[in-house]
Amino acid sequence: MNSHEYTFRVGYPDIDQMGTIHHSRYPVFYEVARWEFFRALGIPYSSIEAAGVLMPVIRMSFHFLQTAHYDDKLTVRTTIKAFKWVRIWFAYELFNEAGCVINRAETELAFVQKSDWKPCSPPAFVTDVLKRCLAQEGE
Amino acid sequence: MNSHEYTFRVGYPDIDQMGTIHHSRYPVFYEVARWEFFRALGIPYSSIEAAGVLMPVIRMSFHFLQTAHYDDKLTVRTTIKAFKWVRIWFAYELFNEAGCVINRAETELAFVQKSDWKPCSPPAFVTDVLKRCLAQEGE
Amino acid sequence: MNSHEYTFRVGYPDIDQMGTIHHSRYPVFYEVARWEFFRALGIPYSSIEAAGVLMPVIRMSFHFLQTAHYDDKLTVRTTIKAFKWVRIWFAYELFNEAGCVINRAETELAFVQKSDWKPCSPPAFVTDVLKRCLAQEGE
Amino acid sequence: MNSHEYTFRVGYPDIDQMGTIHHSRYPVFYEVARWEFFRALGIPYSSIEAAGVLMPVIRMSFHFLQTAHYDDKLTVRTTIKAFKWVRIWFAYELFNEAGCVINRAETELAFVQKSDWKPCSPPAFVTDVLKRCLAQEGE
Repeated sequence: MNSHEYTFRVGYPDIDQMGTIHHSRYPVFYEVARWEFFRALGIPYSSIEAAGVLMPVIRMSFHFLQTAHYDDKLTVRTTIKAFKWVRIWFAYELFNEAGCVINRAETELAFVQKSDWKPCSPPAFVTDVLKRCLAQEGE
Repeated sequence: MNSHEYTFRVGYPDIDQMGTIHHSRYPVFYEVARWEFFRALGIPYSSIEAAGVLMPVIRMSFHFLQTAHYDDKLTVRTTIKAFKWVRIWFAYELFNEAGCVINRAETELAFVQKSDWKPCSPPAFVTDVLKRCLAQEGE
Repeated sequence: MNSHEYTFRVGYPDIDQMGTIHHSRYPVFYEVARWEFFRALGIPYSSIEAAGVLMPVIRMSFHFLQTAHYDDKLTVRTTIKAFKWVRIWFAYELFNEAGCVINRAETELAFVQKSDWKPCSPPAFVTDVLKRCLAQEGE
Repeated sequence: MNSHEYTFRVGYPDIDQMGTIHHSRYPVFYEVARWEFFRALGIPYSSIEAAGVLMPVIRMSFHFLQTAHYDDKLTVRTTIKAFKWVRIWFAYELFNEAGCVINRAETELAFVQKSDWKPCSPPAFVTDVLKRCLAQEGE
């Protein structure tokens, strides 16, 4: 499967004085969702760093459709859109409890060597999982 | 003038274990830069909220070109790209001390009524300044 | 019961360039743990704000005993120490997966009116639960 | 001099839905103030890490006296209280523009080796400055 769902509650410091989630918190929600997806795939992000590879964000974009509030239960649906050479693309949809999409986002991440930040192929154990995951998608 | 520069230092909690700025911090840097620009224009954001109008972010996108580190002195150049009806578009370039652009970003903000979050025209004192600011640009 | 356990994972932006949790994240962990305790008691914090009462932190102190890292699974044991008039005292112990206490903390919170921040008694539905909870303790 | 003042503005994401600064932001304000003090003393924190020594926080405590709001201009007065062996104690007072103390805090930091987190004496260039700074105090 190339998508995954992660549910969480909006915390008090996520909310600014507008009474809604501060926009800088969405990258954090999606990062957690992305790595929970990787954990579910058997390739926790910590194991990738342990193998000497970092995955910095190269591009990210967000579209805010609706607001959410303190203590709301939200669900991120994370999808792996593509994986090519040293890059990987994710898309995110954020749902509220009524099932409405309140935010859409995309991030592009690179694989780089921890030692010198040079782009590199991911470790084989990551490539295998990602290829299988995206192959199933195409079927 | 429709652009403005704001200089700041990268703080310790801005940095994650990659030794570089966490990507979720850029929206925060640009928000500060944007409102320092508005302050310089004589329309501090607090005066807009005091007039019953909020300016939530509707879209934002970021392109990460180069990394930066703890204690680096960075400069944001914020530009007002357009202002139409109930929306305003900003572009940002982030420079390091060597003068290299390390990040580019854009945000689209709406003007909404504090009472019900309905889109609205900005207060007249804001419209006047923004029109003058963008007119000078076209000259 | 006057204590409660809450388990969570350390996220990437919780970690600074020392490779350990930034000290400013502990107040956030304990706030989530405290309100999850209140939720378990049937008095979610959002219901207290809905009743026109805020609970700002008045004092807080932290003792850091051991470090923790990205993706560690930590457990907060939150205890209500006392509740008198317009104040409530909590203590926290943070355990790592090996069962070691890595941080101890205390917070004192006030009940204040949302309208004017004047100290006030909590809503009756809160007082009832807190008294019962602390009475059981004394038995 | 063993004290130093640092002025800053309260940002939008510092404020929660109570309309006041979230308590988890104070450790961040004081950390910036502390290292600006060290910079003024000629021993920027980055130079200490560059010498292979980290300064994690061991204890911290905060007393909240008054609230502050978005865009308020606040001043931290940081004082070095003591420096002994591998530890250093700081006290902080936070003033609003009216000159009222709105928060008091203390932090205890350790000097540890970056390689293994074992307590250690600070680099000589730090010890010299700190001793001179505290000696002047006693005179």
